[in-house]
Amino acid sequence: MKPRLKAQLRFLEETDALKAVSRRTRPIGASRRENSAEHSWQAALAAMLLAEHADEDLDLCRVLQMLLIHDLPEVDVGDVFHYEKESAADLHARELAATRRLLSVLPEEQQRDYLQLWQEFESRQTPEARFAAAVDRFVAFLVNRGNHGGTWVEYQLAATQVLEKNAHIVDASQAIWEAVEEIVKQAVAAGQLSGDDQDG
Amino acid sequence: MKPRLKAQLRFLEETDALKAVSRRTRPIGASRRENSAEHSWQAALAAMLLAEHADEDLDLCRVLQMLLIHDLPEVDVGDVFHYEKESAADLHARELAATRRLLSVLPEEQQRDYLQLWQEFESRQTPEARFAAAVDRFVAFLVNRGNHGGTWVEYQLAATQVLEKNAHIVDASQAIWEAVEEIVKQAVAAGQLSGDDQDG
Repeated sequence: MKPRLKAQLRFLEETDALKAVSRRTRPIGASRRENSAEHSWQAALAAMLLAEHADEDLDLCRVLQMLLIHDLPEVDVGDVFHYEKESAADLHARELAATRRLLSVLPEEQQRDYLQLWQEFESRQTPEARFAAAVDRFVAFLVNRGNHGGTWVEYQLAATQVLEKNAHIVDASQAIWEAVEEIVKQAVAAGQLSGDDQDG
Repeated sequence: MKPRLKAQLRFLEETDALKAVSRRTRPIGASRRENSAEHSWQAALAAMLLAEHADEDLDLCRVLQMLLIHDLPEVDVGDVFHYEKESAADLHARELAATRRLLSVLPEEQQRDYLQLWQEFESRQTPEARFAAAVDRFVAFLVNRGNHGGTWVEYQLAATQVLEKNAHIVDASQAIWEAVEEIVKQAVAAGQLSGDDQDG
């Protein structure tokens, strides 16, 4: 077996563990929590489906690749709930270290390319990263809506909190942001999100 | 919300059910079976990682999109074990009907494009489809190897059977096919695959 291929297989074997990283959200209608591998699939599928709504020109291939690897550091670090990220100040540093560790088995230029791809996603400084980050968050709205509020209800979140934490979506897509606002409004009307963050 | 976006969200909501479609393989080290959503993520990740080993020039973006949607009909039809596919002669027809049904909520040109993408994957007549199909199968080798034989042991498969059923990999990548042959040889040596299909 070619040495490069052998190294790549080690990477695929190790990142298989993403299937065991539990998120807070649940698949629609399921009692179990979803894992970061199936979430990554859904985010990439959503990106290809919704690319037309991006407000900037996109290299879709780069967006897809970002979403396929964006959660890899969770193999070491686990998934941190989006609304608890303030309490994990060193999270980015730990994720960066995890990304470097996982990539370290790969051929050198793939290490470099994938690290760059992950850092680009995290920084949201390019159209591709902004759109990938928007879609990554948007699928959680979709799943919560399908689950009668899902984690919004379970963690008693407020509409203002949800809108503030996801405000970056508007930088990628006005249309998706409008959908977010509509979904949040409906969730407030249904009592799934509190309308005032003092009540949350 | 824009009508197109509304339709696309219905599609994403419905295809969320892929997270509940059980395959025979298991994540490495896990007791549960893996689902088709996390498998789709892994196949797409493997395609981006291993694209250099394709023997023909590839549009990687098309390969990734194929792998993200290739299992969608399983939402209706379920996953059929690769080694039992002879017994499901009408499988392709049922999967085609399921694909059409799932796509029917989408804007017309997306229905057309995605149906074409799915049919291209199934037909293996383009470099992209050949490579996507090869990687789709190759990740099962990886996961079985990581699970001390996995489904090879569970279903008492023979090396010849496994090589025959996956022989199309060589049409996409000589390097990946050599890896398959090496992995199968090691599995026979470890008693995970029988060396003669009469014993299987």
